[in-house]
Amino acid sequence: MKLATLRNGTIDGQLAIVSTDLSRFTQASAIAPTLQDALDRWDEVSTPLSALSVKLNKGDISGKPFDASMTMSPLPRAYQWIDASAYMSHLERVRTAVGSKDAELQTARPIMYQGGSDTLLGAHDDIVVPDDELAVDFEAELAVILGPVSMGANAEEAEQAIRLITICNDVSLRRLVADDLQGGFGFFHAKPSSSFGPIVATPDEFGAAWDGKKLTGKLQSRVNGVLYGQPSTHIDMLFDFPQLIAEAARTRNLSAGTILGSGTVANTHDEILPIGSDGIGFSCIVEARTAEKAKNEKATTPFLKQSDKVAIRFLAEDGTFPIGEISQTVTVLED
Amino acid sequence: MKLATLRNGTIDGQLAIVSTDLSRFTQASAIAPTLQDALDRWDEVSTPLSALSVKLNKGDISGKPFDASMTMSPLPRAYQWIDASAYMSHLERVRTAVGSKDAELQTARPIMYQGGSDTLLGAHDDIVVPDDELAVDFEAELAVILGPVSMGANAEEAEQAIRLITICNDVSLRRLVADDLQGGFGFFHAKPSSSFGPIVATPDEFGAAWDGKKLTGKLQSRVNGVLYGQPSTHIDMLFDFPQLIAEAARTRNLSAGTILGSGTVANTHDEILPIGSDGIGFSCIVEARTAEKAKNEKATTPFLKQSDKVAIRFLAEDGTFPIGEISQTVTVLED
Repeated sequence: MKLATLRNGTIDGQLAIVSTDLSRFTQASAIAPTLQDALDRWDEVSTPLSALSVKLNKGDISGKPFDASMTMSPLPRAYQWIDASAYMSHLERVRTAVGSKDAELQTARPIMYQGGSDTLLGAHDDIVVPDDELAVDFEAELAVILGPVSMGANAEEAEQAIRLITICNDVSLRRLVADDLQGGFGFFHAKPSSSFGPIVATPDEFGAAWDGKKLTGKLQSRVNGVLYGQPSTHIDMLFDFPQLIAEAARTRNLSAGTILGSGTVANTHDEILPIGSDGIGFSCIVEARTAEKAKNEKATTPFLKQSDKVAIRFLAEDGTFPIGEISQTVTVLED
Repeated sequence: MKLATLRNGTIDGQLAIVSTDLSRFTQASAIAPTLQDALDRWDEVSTPLSALSVKLNKGDISGKPFDASMTMSPLPRAYQWIDASAYMSHLERVRTAVGSKDAELQTARPIMYQGGSDTLLGAHDDIVVPDDELAVDFEAELAVILGPVSMGANAEEAEQAIRLITICNDVSLRRLVADDLQGGFGFFHAKPSSSFGPIVATPDEFGAAWDGKKLTGKLQSRVNGVLYGQPSTHIDMLFDFPQLIAEAARTRNLSAGTILGSGTVANTHDEILPIGSDGIGFSCIVEARTAEKAKNEKATTPFLKQSDKVAIRFLAEDGTFPIGEISQTVTVLED
């Protein structure tokens, strides 16, 4: 089934079931008022939610027209947001960028950072930044939303906890990365509120494209309508989702509603921007700039500025976009 | 007023008002079922909660006997937990410890890390660790719980957002610090679930000891009944709470229920353990060990092991402990 959180004037929004083709929705609040509540009581509510989804898709319930701009973040505030870095080519490219830590790449264990989760952005919310001179960047990712995971869980147990799949924009202020890392306490100011897709889907919605560990397809990113990247989500993913989850649970329990990001999706190639319709490209600007510097000794793709638009969507192998699109505009905070 | 979250079989517990002398409580769930709900609707509920507190303290409501072991973390799961490092002598000592980053101390801006907040521990909950060979340590801190803070808020605005004050144990696995920092993404595995005091109190409960920016008093830490430290909370705090909050809000909004920690409370001195009843000592073990190495070339105070007990309490100038005690036992996770 496919779910969304609709704006209703409350902090946590209202849970809705969305039809498979994303054309219609019906409210699910009689079963669970919010997505967090549904995740807290998943064993109890997943069957009735699923039954409602079947009715909506069959047309037994007509529903109302769905529009992604009605959505908030699936979890407008979450208790846990962890962002991993599973695609090594992203790390390789970013680590050579100015201001990044020149540590050896760790390939034995996945690395991940603790994200802030109290003000997550919806798919169509503006990216509000204090200043657009901060090298504003996007990072296109896949993310999974979990049921509870016990400390020390193995990958098999972790796999069972995957409830929902969505897309993510891990907004980054590159100019603040060096400052954050110099402090030695990790990312903080450089990683403001992240954004999530309009739809969260249960793994079964993806058919064979979801093998329990990775999702097969492409993640397309566009800036002001220009294709910046469409790397394959199943290629070059050094650590799969169950491995990432197990790593996150090494020293802690993870609560229901934990969101875990894949890290910026990236495939190895030697392209630079612009790319053609069959290019691979990049899921963030800093990678594109690093490739430009390597090839031309100069980075030319600019970071995001006031009014720039970023769009991210997951492209399935059948050519559809089954979990909708993130489409955001950069806005500078007014004094 | 003083509030607590009582265990009632739910994830988020039940809100209670506790008498000023911590002897009695009355349920507040008719006004707000949980502390998070109260913080979400503070303007609406703080007056009735306060009226209930007055009645309880006057004896108009008899209440029931209060016992800190009935409490969960004030917010058993929170949307935001930020831990700062406001006491420079902690940073100075820790940064010379093995495995820590040898960066220059930053004194122009406070540094802070993004904590995980989905599984916070109550004052009497066990500290469950995967292995007690991980150099298990405590960090005794003060913490404030906030109303909403807008991105770019100044210190004056930040001060107005301080709703509640409590104590904290920022549990740390020192052996994992170097690993985390080498990854370049900041603390993750080294900072599992933190613990919070049994009581949260509004600032007015502290009288003149709270000046809107800092709390005057001492934070006592004991390990297995032995006094390890009692530094003054108002001394050597380079950045006060409003400054810490404003820094945290530089690139993001903070939501209601944000918890912000002071960092390990520390005063400058040249003591080592054991300390006498008038000593200052340390609010964590790694600092005590660093001082031992500097003085004797060898660290002798051990990290925490299975069954060790850590107790932390705030001592007011009148000799009382107005917000109760954290009292936890280290337990190794069973296979």
